[in-house]
Amino acid sequence: MSLSKNEIKDLRFLQSKRGREDQGLYLVEGPKLIEEAVKSGAKIQTIYSTDESFNLKGDFKLISNKELSQVSLLKTPNKAIATVLMNQPEFSKFQDKKLALVLDRINDPGNLGTILRIADWFGISQIICSPGSVEHTNPKVVQASMGAVFRVKVYQMEINEAVEQFKSQFPDGNVLVADMAGESIHESSYADHAMLIMGSESHGIDPSILDLQVNRIHIPGYGRAESLNVGVATGIICSSILR
Amino acid sequence: MSLSKNEIKDLRFLQSKRGREDQGLYLVEGPKLIEEAVKSGAKIQTIYSTDESFNLKGDFKLISNKELSQVSLLKTPNKAIATVLMNQPEFSKFQDKKLALVLDRINDPGNLGTILRIADWFGISQIICSPGSVEHTNPKVVQASMGAVFRVKVYQMEINEAVEQFKSQFPDGNVLVADMAGESIHESSYADHAMLIMGSESHGIDPSILDLQVNRIHIPGYGRAESLNVGVATGIICSSILR
Repeated sequence: MSLSKNEIKDLRFLQSKRGREDQGLYLVEGPKLIEEAVKSGAKIQTIYSTDESFNLKGDFKLISNKELSQVSLLKTPNKAIATVLMNQPEFSKFQDKKLALVLDRINDPGNLGTILRIADWFGISQIICSPGSVEHTNPKVVQASMGAVFRVKVYQMEINEAVEQFKSQFPDGNVLVADMAGESIHESSYADHAMLIMGSESHGIDPSILDLQVNRIHIPGYGRAESLNVGVATGIICSSILR
Repeated sequence: MSLSKNEIKDLRFLQSKRGREDQGLYLVEGPKLIEEAVKSGAKIQTIYSTDESFNLKGDFKLISNKELSQVSLLKTPNKAIATVLMNQPEFSKFQDKKLALVLDRINDPGNLGTILRIADWFGISQIICSPGSVEHTNPKVVQASMGAVFRVKVYQMEINEAVEQFKSQFPDGNVLVADMAGESIHESSYADHAMLIMGSESHGIDPSILDLQVNRIHIPGYGRAESLNVGVATGIICSSILR
């Protein structure tokens, strides 16, 4: 046994938000994701692996399969888990001229991970999350993002503050809110600079946001479904704005 | 206790593919989904509920919270679970003139559920799944589909057979395959009748499909992500074809 009981406890503690905040670390699982983290310049603290040769960066500890499964969140633990230093950059300004992406209380980890992946696909380098969103260092977000979490910067900010900042930076920019009552994305013409605000499926958009000067848009549907998955909706709207 | 040990075993057996095939039944959980099933005309066999008043259709059994949690797949069991008769309609022809959706070995239940929801949103009434796809009666698919599974018909068919059938029905139709090497969806012009084939993220598209007479299309990306989630990609391409 190369891990003490306390080390196992510490690693498992990182599965919780409190543990991550307390220790300033988060977990990355599996060789592919850990390699992506290293490649993207994330600060690896320790790699724990069942494979001696998987000694990429930072401290290294060889562990047993049993130990790996004790600290893993995956159904099928995969060779390695790493602790990575949290790094919360200060927001200074919007970097993506064409599209700034803002999420209002997205709390499903799979959805946030999928949206990070969408941002990464479309070259969106920053995402603003309102307070009350799931943290991007949640292990399920990290997993679902397929590595995008190491490349796209996530900032926490109140939405009205983000809108204000956006308007001062792009006075002729357009703030778009996905909303059933909006106009069709196919009828909309987009400004050179757009901010897109997506709400969660369970909460929708905070009504106070609709009081700001925003344009509501929606994806026309022809069937009987009540809504689309928020990741899917984000992908469709981003594609429509950036085409 | 209103459920015998054997009844609990039978219900749990329906969580597996073999159990569903054996008994010709599948599970639907939670009041909202069960209501959707009833509304859509699915044949309910029995509703098991902790709430006496939730007696919508078919047989009814009042059960305890403990019993519900013994047969539930949800983290937080929600008032009721129902058994529904499997109903595998025979495919006769493509009903959706504008877009026929075909899935090649999609085996993540969350992804198939999301795609069913997309189809339902866009009014696509049929989906073809290749052999080797996850079954639409898998409880996680049912859950993720948010009720779409009761409205969209799912058929299992070999892809080349589906392509042949499509071409005989729509001789001037266009068979589209999502593929990294394809032309941009924004550059493509679509025929009046299109078939869209989506492959899984893990397997991609079966090479034998690319040997058929198909047009490859892809979603242009400007970032560093390797791929999009298949549900997101399906949503973006459907939206682009149906706009």
